[in-house]
Amino acid sequence: MSLLDYFKLSKPKTATLAKERLQILVAHERYYRNKPSYLPQLQEELMQVIRKYVQVDQDAISVKFEQDENQETLELNIVLPDTQSNSAREHIARDVF
Amino acid sequence: MSLLDYFKLSKPKTATLAKERLQILVAHERYYRNKPSYLPQLQEELMQVIRKYVQVDQDAISVKFEQDENQETLELNIVLPDTQSNSAREHIARDVF
Repeated sequence: MSLLDYFKLSKPKTATLAKERLQILVAHERYYRNKPSYLPQLQEELMQVIRKYVQVDQDAISVKFEQDENQETLELNIVLPDTQSNSAREHIARDVF
Repeated sequence: MSLLDYFKLSKPKTATLAKERLQILVAHERYYRNKPSYLPQLQEELMQVIRKYVQVDQDAISVKFEQDENQETLELNIVLPDTQSNSAREHIARDVF
C-alpha cells in the first residue's frame, strides 16, 4: 500500500473533509535505546518550519505520539484555516472582472 | 490501521533492517490549487531541522513525491549512520568495566 493510499484510508469522515489539511508523520526505528527520544523537541521545530508556509492556529493542531519496543511515531494533524479558500475566491474574482 | 502498523508493514525486508531509520511523511490535502506547492521547499527545511539531531549522509536519504487531484505526499526515508550503535557499545563497555 502506498503512502497516498494510507492517507486516503485514514481521512476522517467528518465536517473537516471540506478543509485543507496538513499531516506530518515522523517514525524513528530505534535499536539502541541509550539516548532519549528527540521526537518531542523535533515536533516543536517542525511546527516552526510549517508556520513559515501556512498560518496555523494552536487549537487546529492535534498531536499523537506512539511507541513500542523498537519504534516511535509522531503524528501531527493540522487543519488549515480558510484563508486559502478566500484567496482562491479572490483569484476567481480577478479572473472574472 | 494505526500509523505504527503502517510503518511496520512498509518496513523493507533488506539488510537495512539492522540500521536505525527515520521516516518523515508530509501529506497536504489541497482543495484550492491556485497556489504552487510548497512541499519541495519544505523538504529542504525539514532536512535542516533533522540535521540538528542526527548526522545524515546525503546518499542516505531517499525522497518520494506523489500527487493526485486533491492530495500531495512527500516521503523522506533516512538511514541513520552507525554512530549511535558505536555509542551504545561504549555505553555497555562503561557498564562492564
